[in-house]
Amino acid sequence: MSDSGIEKISEIIHGRLRLGVMAYLANAEAASLTELKAVLDVTQGNLSIQMRKLEDAGYIAIDKAIVGRKSLTTVRITPEGRAAFVAYLEALSGVLGGQLKT
Amino acid sequence: MSDSGIEKISEIIHGRLRLGVMAYLANAEAASLTELKAVLDVTQGNLSIQMRKLEDAGYIAIDKAIVGRKSLTTVRITPEGRAAFVAYLEALSGVLGGQLKT
Repeated sequence: MSDSGIEKISEIIHGRLRLGVMAYLANAEAASLTELKAVLDVTQGNLSIQMRKLEDAGYIAIDKAIVGRKSLTTVRITPEGRAAFVAYLEALSGVLGGQLKT
Repeated sequence: MSDSGIEKISEIIHGRLRLGVMAYLANAEAASLTELKAVLDVTQGNLSIQMRKLEDAGYIAIDKAIVGRKSLTTVRITPEGRAAFVAYLEALSGVLGGQLKT
């Protein structure tokens, strides 16, 4: 174990796009895929790959529904995801010490 | 440009080990390679690869000296590195909103 605590930073969450998804969902609780794509300004392909990693970790849940003739994909943060995100923020704070002003 | 601001997060600094190096040097100003290896608990090979990326970006300066019969490598953060680290922290704060407590 290092003194710096970098190994406590979850690599699953730390990736920039995945971090964007988690930070957004931690606030919003749930979002449509369309909303996430717009907020994060990413292609569907790239977003899908990163969301898959978060889903595999159990941090988000993805629901697909047919509304009228359109498919609606809703993404929400799970309780496990919320706990992991809180732990991630704590680990990040530990590494950055008091250097981060929010 | 995304609303979330994830693209403002420097990928050069964001990598976990590089972030550990930058955060440590932002506090300590300079450190020996031995000290960095111990604090970050990493192998010399891995640390060297990541430090090279930070050096190529102009964020750290690496000096090698011979002291007695030993070689001493000193790593310090550059003014450009400090400015980039401050910008990184601001970008990270932007993405995380008020979620990060320090």
